[in-house]
Amino acid sequence: MSGKLTYKQSGVDTIEAQSFVKNISAHVKRTQKTRQLCNAFGLFAAAYDLSDYEEPVIVTGTDGVGTKTELLFEQDMLETAGKDLVAMNVNDILTTGGDPLLFLDYLGISNLKTETPRITRLVAGMADYLESCGCILAGGETAEMPGVVPEDLVELAGFCIGCVEKKAMIDPSRVAVGDVLIGYGSDGFHANGWSLVRRILQQNPGLLSTEELRSALAPTRLYHDVVRDMRAMGLVPKAYAHITGGGLPENLERFLGERGADLVLPHWDNEPVQKVLQYVDEEDRFHTFNMGIGWVSIVAPDQVEQALTAGPGGNVLGTIRDGRGIRVKVSD
Amino acid sequence: MSGKLTYKQSGVDTIEAQSFVKNISAHVKRTQKTRQLCNAFGLFAAAYDLSDYEEPVIVTGTDGVGTKTELLFEQDMLETAGKDLVAMNVNDILTTGGDPLLFLDYLGISNLKTETPRITRLVAGMADYLESCGCILAGGETAEMPGVVPEDLVELAGFCIGCVEKKAMIDPSRVAVGDVLIGYGSDGFHANGWSLVRRILQQNPGLLSTEELRSALAPTRLYHDVVRDMRAMGLVPKAYAHITGGGLPENLERFLGERGADLVLPHWDNEPVQKVLQYVDEEDRFHTFNMGIGWVSIVAPDQVEQALTAGPGGNVLGTIRDGRGIRVKVSD
Repeated sequence: MSGKLTYKQSGVDTIEAQSFVKNISAHVKRTQKTRQLCNAFGLFAAAYDLSDYEEPVIVTGTDGVGTKTELLFEQDMLETAGKDLVAMNVNDILTTGGDPLLFLDYLGISNLKTETPRITRLVAGMADYLESCGCILAGGETAEMPGVVPEDLVELAGFCIGCVEKKAMIDPSRVAVGDVLIGYGSDGFHANGWSLVRRILQQNPGLLSTEELRSALAPTRLYHDVVRDMRAMGLVPKAYAHITGGGLPENLERFLGERGADLVLPHWDNEPVQKVLQYVDEEDRFHTFNMGIGWVSIVAPDQVEQALTAGPGGNVLGTIRDGRGIRVKVSD
Repeated sequence: MSGKLTYKQSGVDTIEAQSFVKNISAHVKRTQKTRQLCNAFGLFAAAYDLSDYEEPVIVTGTDGVGTKTELLFEQDMLETAGKDLVAMNVNDILTTGGDPLLFLDYLGISNLKTETPRITRLVAGMADYLESCGCILAGGETAEMPGVVPEDLVELAGFCIGCVEKKAMIDPSRVAVGDVLIGYGSDGFHANGWSLVRRILQQNPGLLSTEELRSALAPTRLYHDVVRDMRAMGLVPKAYAHITGGGLPENLERFLGERGADLVLPHWDNEPVQKVLQYVDEEDRFHTFNMGIGWVSIVAPDQVEQALTAGPGGNVLGTIRDGRGIRVKVSD
């Protein structure tokens, strides 16, 4: 009967969806070399067997890439967007001392047919990072929402599940006066503070060359190497912190209670980043950006020497003292 | 120094974010009556202790509410959007026979200050459904993305983690010829096919009254009552299916292999829905909508009588036969 509509005529193509799933299957597979999903034929959920753990505690979180997404898409840096999405989530899981096991992504797009090449590259970037830390791409939802999601943009959300043995869980309440904060370098602004960066770039056209902008957009560093090396050396830190929105102060103060620290950061040796920072309020920059430090391990004084060799880029930033508050300055 | 920007000036207000977190804390708390997160002070991830399980298998998935979101927002049905988000995810977890344990949400918004009242209502809706099935609101990310997310809209993604004892996991490969398909009623279109519904409503203004539209937008039914009752009676079904995009055929064929069924559905007694369906291609409607059946349990013939009493609204739809394919018609 004429006048009757099919679902495809309303802009949603389920056949196209199956073709996308085929496109990304090679990427999904390479995230299952270290670990595998368990055989759960016909279920509507991905399944992973934890029965080898003695006392498993699962840990989970969700994050996105924020307004960095828009700049990454303008620069056609799709793989980077995928890596950022993974790192923002996996790093949070790593603060527990556990292993990231399963990752899921949610992609909201305007049109699957036109976006398939780009979201395939996005998934490829995710798979690169997931493969490197042994985490499975366990599922995802690609929602085609014509008229809701702006064209040429993808809404990204990620979600990670990890597991840790109960007795091996990091316990930041153990942090004591005298413990040492070791910072590990970041690879740029990572995925926080980009609303401010964008505003500065709009007000100062030409501030960064394309090459410099792309360098500032480097993907969030994955800190699984630090955690893996610490574990291999038998070192259990008092706390780990992933430095994201809110910078070093907010991300450390959340668990320090009545203790604090005066931190001295090495100069952030990143020219494009420094060009942007000159337009940012001197105090606010520490509360918005990672200021060159994307990860902090807090260890007992007798573990400092070894901990500095975990992963590349470790530097002593300061020592836990009595009294609330993290004060940060950059070394002269 | 003038000319230097703070993060707030770029449109992101972290103080406002803390106020939002306070607003929703009462809702978060009421999802922890049945189950509790384990004490994981200072970690960057939510933690849940599985050590009481003998052989835990975790199950997980992600879903959104699709283009239904837009209509729900136009109708100011924020609580419904929250319920839909939970149900779309929790129902998938329930197909494994496991318990939904943890739920996380990702909300992308344009402005936290203006959107706080609405997203608080959205979270209230989530909490209503989560509380009813004993699942914890374990975390979430509310990303303020001025200029990226359209104003007056919220991008929604949900993630759910459940757990099931290995030996109690539903195994749809056990489905055999002669097994019986029991369908449980839906509460409307649920959260699939709305791009098509919207198109029809645009082409036929006045087709539905506001009251009828709101009735068609009823939240996705949560089928935990069916699964809970089945378990209480000691019944282990061969398979569960959550009927979403693709309708009964795609959601059953995915695990039936060389078997199939000829289903006869009861008339979908829902006037607003029927008014819309008259504009949908006769065949396509079965592949786009749930056609009044949001959940299917497949059970051995000797369990049919009992299974029909699990949850309200159970009806025998047909019997598994040899030969690929699900054919569906509505009873005369």
